[in-house]
Amino acid sequence: MRTLRDPAEMQSWALEQRRVGHSIGLVPTMGFLHDGHLSLVKKARASADLVCVSIFVNPTQFGPNEDFSTYPRDWERDEALCRQAGVDLIFAPAPEAVYAADASVSVVEKRLATRLCGASRPGHFEGVCTVVAKLFNLTQPTFAVFGEKDAQQLRIIRRMVRDLNIPVEIVSGPIVRESDGLAMSSRNARLRSDERGQAVCLRRALDTVESAFARGERSADALRSAALAEIARAPLARVDYVDLVDDVTLEPVSRIEAPVLCALAVHFPSARLIDNAVLKG
Amino acid sequence: MRTLRDPAEMQSWALEQRRVGHSIGLVPTMGFLHDGHLSLVKKARASADLVCVSIFVNPTQFGPNEDFSTYPRDWERDEALCRQAGVDLIFAPAPEAVYAADASVSVVEKRLATRLCGASRPGHFEGVCTVVAKLFNLTQPTFAVFGEKDAQQLRIIRRMVRDLNIPVEIVSGPIVRESDGLAMSSRNARLRSDERGQAVCLRRALDTVESAFARGERSADALRSAALAEIARAPLARVDYVDLVDDVTLEPVSRIEAPVLCALAVHFPSARLIDNAVLKG
Repeated sequence: MRTLRDPAEMQSWALEQRRVGHSIGLVPTMGFLHDGHLSLVKKARASADLVCVSIFVNPTQFGPNEDFSTYPRDWERDEALCRQAGVDLIFAPAPEAVYAADASVSVVEKRLATRLCGASRPGHFEGVCTVVAKLFNLTQPTFAVFGEKDAQQLRIIRRMVRDLNIPVEIVSGPIVRESDGLAMSSRNARLRSDERGQAVCLRRALDTVESAFARGERSADALRSAALAEIARAPLARVDYVDLVDDVTLEPVSRIEAPVLCALAVHFPSARLIDNAVLKG
Repeated sequence: MRTLRDPAEMQSWALEQRRVGHSIGLVPTMGFLHDGHLSLVKKARASADLVCVSIFVNPTQFGPNEDFSTYPRDWERDEALCRQAGVDLIFAPAPEAVYAADASVSVVEKRLATRLCGASRPGHFEGVCTVVAKLFNLTQPTFAVFGEKDAQQLRIIRRMVRDLNIPVEIVSGPIVRESDGLAMSSRNARLRSDERGQAVCLRRALDTVESAFARGERSADALRSAALAEIARAPLARVDYVDLVDDVTLEPVSRIEAPVLCALAVHFPSARLIDNAVLKG
């Protein structure tokens, strides 16, 4: 397994591999890898000649009051996990190597990105789209694998690829959960034990929504209220949003007819958590 | 010579050509080709295995009150000129094939694009960057050739390529002029004969600036006044801007020390014309 830190070297390597006919599967991450990431690596490993994992805590997708500096990092462990998972190359650049001091170009999605996390994290998806466009150019993937936990991100990346005609296939992998149902996230490491206990409220809220939907409930308001009631049972949880939106446009719906994304974001004192489920209307 | 109109077909062709090791030189145009364009094609022809000319009047780079619908078009003539110039492929898509009805992603340059033409044509360079990023993804060029008449566009495209790590070399070709000095432009065709006579004021203004600079004048105000006086002699001309800006940052300068771009834009009743010269400070 190789590690490259220099973007120019990364790009030369990738262009050369593509030139000689190898396929490249990219798994873009911010590191502090968990079984969720590793499931995406496994998916990439199954169909690419070469698997590249990028490890880059991207400053431009964090707001000024967000957790860029405290985002968990563990290079040694990440490297060992990648090696075990059969990764061919880690791309782990420094922020200064990725962004020129006078960088002035970004990729902006103007519709899907205004909702859900985009509403509470202004500029977040501009940072995401820009860094993903850059990573695609630097690592030249045949396909890239994204986790379904970041549901809005996945949909925005698909939109970006479509609208900019980027020749990269976007593949997704299902949410991987802890035994109690909490969706795996690097940020879970920051939860204190009392918060960790209550963090299962996100999954419980989605369970409640899915059960009510299975029993025939089609009112978005009713489903949303059921989710909120479940989260309200966790005293440390403060809801950012609980929304039922069209799975493609991310526009709010009032009745579940076409597939709907039920997405939630909840603040705990030590971390903001997200989770989601798709209701096949 | 082939013509492709379908973006998906274009991209497959280009990816396949690159896979088998051919280099591709792209000349992006809005058609109604003149000797300026053909000089860029010649430059591409000299070093690419395959020369692709895109002909696409891009709606997103025209403002609502601009000349999208009246922009001159002549498909038959363009095709004949490309054939004579040894072009391998014309990519000439319809706007609906390039932009999904719900397209929502753009590429935005936030610093250079606020000045000069960007100040008088809001959204113009967002349209340019987005379509060029798309054309690069669709035609997979090794290099792309842009004319120096569109000085700000050239600098913004170079910035985009740098900031998004796009693996395309940007090559430029010098301004080609009519015998009286008017810079070639597809829009010149729209000038009435009285306007056409006076349109040489742009080149004359630049001559005046360059002569004064050669005589040692280093004050931007003095050079600008000389240019304005020259344009004022053309009664049909209405100045949009005459600016002396740093050649890299496009920030206004007061004295010519490092290389400076002297850029001008002038409205005539039938067309808005631009021209420029670089003063090597």
